[in-house]
Amino acid sequence: MKAISVTDDKKLALIDTPTPTLNEGEVLVRVHAAGVNRADILQAAGHYPPPEGESEIIGLECAGIIEDPGTTNRSKGEPVACLLAGGGYAEYVAVPEGQLMPIPQGYSFAEAAAVVEVATTVWSNIGMLTGLSKEHTILIHGGAGGIGTFAIQMAKHIGATVAVTAGSVEKLQTCAQLGADILINYREQDFAEIMKNKCDRILDIMGAKYLDGNLTALAMDGHMVIIGLQGGVKGELNIGKLLSKRGTISATALRARDRADKARIVADTVANIWNLLEEGVIRHHIHATLPLEEAQKAHDMLKSGEVTGKLVLTVS
Amino acid sequence: MKAISVTDDKKLALIDTPTPTLNEGEVLVRVHAAGVNRADILQAAGHYPPPEGESEIIGLECAGIIEDPGTTNRSKGEPVACLLAGGGYAEYVAVPEGQLMPIPQGYSFAEAAAVVEVATTVWSNIGMLTGLSKEHTILIHGGAGGIGTFAIQMAKHIGATVAVTAGSVEKLQTCAQLGADILINYREQDFAEIMKNKCDRILDIMGAKYLDGNLTALAMDGHMVIIGLQGGVKGELNIGKLLSKRGTISATALRARDRADKARIVADTVANIWNLLEEGVIRHHIHATLPLEEAQKAHDMLKSGEVTGKLVLTVS
Ligand SMILES: NC(=O)c1ccc[n+]([C@@H]2O[C@H](COP(=O)([O-])OP(=O)(O)OC[C@H]3O[C@@H](n4cnc5c(N)ncnc54)[C@H](OP(=O)(O)O)[C@@H]3O)[C@@H](O)[C@H]2O)c1
Ligand SMILES: NC(=O)c1ccc[n+]([C@@H]2O[C@H](COP(=O)([O-])OP(=O)(O)OC[C@H]3O[C@@H](n4cnc5c(N)ncnc54)[C@H](OP(=O)(O)O)[C@@H]3O)[C@@H](O)[C@H]2O)c1
Repeated sequence: MKAISVTDDKKLALIDTPTPTLNEGEVLVRVHAAGVNRADILQAAGHYPPPEGESEIIGLECAGIIEDPGTTNRSKGEPVACLLAGGGYAEYVAVPEGQLMPIPQGYSFAEAAAVVEVATTVWSNIGMLTGLSKEHTILIHGGAGGIGTFAIQMAKHIGATVAVTAGSVEKLQTCAQLGADILINYREQDFAEIMKNKCDRILDIMGAKYLDGNLTALAMDGHMVIIGLQGGVKGELNIGKLLSKRGTISATALRARDRADKARIVADTVANIWNLLEEGVIRHHIHATLPLEEAQKAHDMLKSGEVTGKLVLTVS
Repeated sequence: MKAISVTDDKKLALIDTPTPTLNEGEVLVRVHAAGVNRADILQAAGHYPPPEGESEIIGLECAGIIEDPGTTNRSKGEPVACLLAGGGYAEYVAVPEGQLMPIPQGYSFAEAAAVVEVATTVWSNIGMLTGLSKEHTILIHGGAGGIGTFAIQMAKHIGATVAVTAGSVEKLQTCAQLGADILINYREQDFAEIMKNKCDRILDIMGAKYLDGNLTALAMDGHMVIIGLQGGVKGELNIGKLLSKRGTISATALRARDRADKARIVADTVANIWNLLEEGVIRHHIHATLPLEEAQKAHDMLKSGEVTGKLVLTVS
């Protein structure tokens, strides 16, 4: 099959490679579209190796058609969206059955491929882990980003009050259109002061840089979840401050979860989020689709920062 | 009434002071016994003021008899144990109804007064907050202390594997007799290395000093709860390490909780722990009882470090 591989000088190039063989409980999917994620750039640069035993090929989500159901009860020809530990940038990928999702009604393969990672990430953290409810105020950092735009819509659907940070007036405008109630320009304003003691939940992508500010923003019995480390890995934690708020800090990543855990999250996400996608309550924007062989161009675009919404690679 | 007050030179002395008046939903309790806690020493030194609106008198737990049921449906003469925000070192104390507990069958007033703080603290953290189960391994720091001895017994009753730290062979022996499975002398051994990646739950009382070690000891999806800051308030948090384990850190304190929250914890503790006290599954050791007027002596004893088990003040 054709697949994308990383060359010695860290470029993405189309190669010929053996079609994956199936292990027990896996199906072979003919990929029609594969989502591009920021983590893919890290992996291409050699900083984010796949979990042990998983495909070396880049690509954390895709949509396509079952080519070989293996030992499962699935049917050849069934359209599916897939959460992957790797392998999406290819014509075929082997997928554990628990990581298959239906294509949301009315969604194209590209739209389905684009929504898997963000939907499972946001729901597993905000919904399953912290139990966001309509009484809560949630602070979403990077509200205009891929994770952020999805999280705003989900939190508003739940009925929570939503505060966001973003880096420009235009981006805050996007957040407002999606329903965000409190708009904070992180280049000009201090979110910690504005949200002091007000946030029952925080979805953080900055890590160390925002640790103490998030603690200031946290309300009594608040829970912050860190899913990105864009602002560094190590930070000073004032445990006295955490204790005085009876606060909780979690940090999570989706990719390293074992298959049982992923299956649990996939099932819960489909049960809680898929109807919202089908009804258009949550919309997820595709910035551009490119053919698989232009994977390098897609990465260059994402690195440039000009992308708003998702990039998707299509496989013909 | 008689009560203990802190003199200008920070000594405890018996004084005459007005009997408390009742607010809506409070009962007046004639105190027979009041437990002595480490936090009381802090408060006597001026470092731990009571929450707003609560009694200035020291004392976080007591047992006695209802003298005046106020507007509640309780009866005069009913024996009760009480979780207090303050006021225990006195002849009478006003107690919100939600903070009243029955005296465990077979318990004296002194035994009941001695068990309230530790039972609610341990259960609210290990049971309610982290949901300890028999599949878990829990690390309990200070296993031979008041909190520790109780926590070991509770965790073993649940069926968990229990590791403890303590500062001497004798103290570890005490922990082993209570059922602890893994004994670590913190003066000679490195708990973080011994328990590396093994602890699903950690009950910490050291704060900053043990933050990184606890993170090393944490297992995948582990949850540590910090309830004491004996080793300092501020420490470096490696968020990348936390994320790679999908870990959670909580820090809590019982005293500052509002009345509704305390009532919820009191009810849950009675429902889950009181039968274990009555059946002798969990035992809580009283080191000595002293008359109320010797409160200063009790504090001196506790400060000396010679106390193993609880000190209780009795009111005649
Ligand atoms: N742990 C997991 O399972 C998991 C899964 C998926 C993603 N993630 C992580 O989540 C993060 C967001 O992913 P994404 O796909 O949404 O990427 P993205 O679309 O590129 O978004 C990045 C966001 O970071 C924001 N940002 C940059 N500097 C900021 C600052 N100082 N304060 C607040 N926001 C700031 C940007 O805001 P502006 O554009 O307004 O400047 C932008 O919204 C990434 O770090 C990613 O690695 C984690
Ligand atoms: N947040 C809350 O709601 C709450 C409620 C109650 C208590 N607490 C806190 O919980 C802690 C324990 O209370 P307690 O009543 O059990 O006090 P305690 O009986 O005096 O116990 C103190 C414990 O600290 C241990 N310790 C000292 N240095 C240590 C080290 N380097 N490593 C491990 N353990 C060490 C001691 O162990 P050795 O004796 O073996 O040296 C002892 O077991 C206190 O900090 C208290 O303030 C918090």
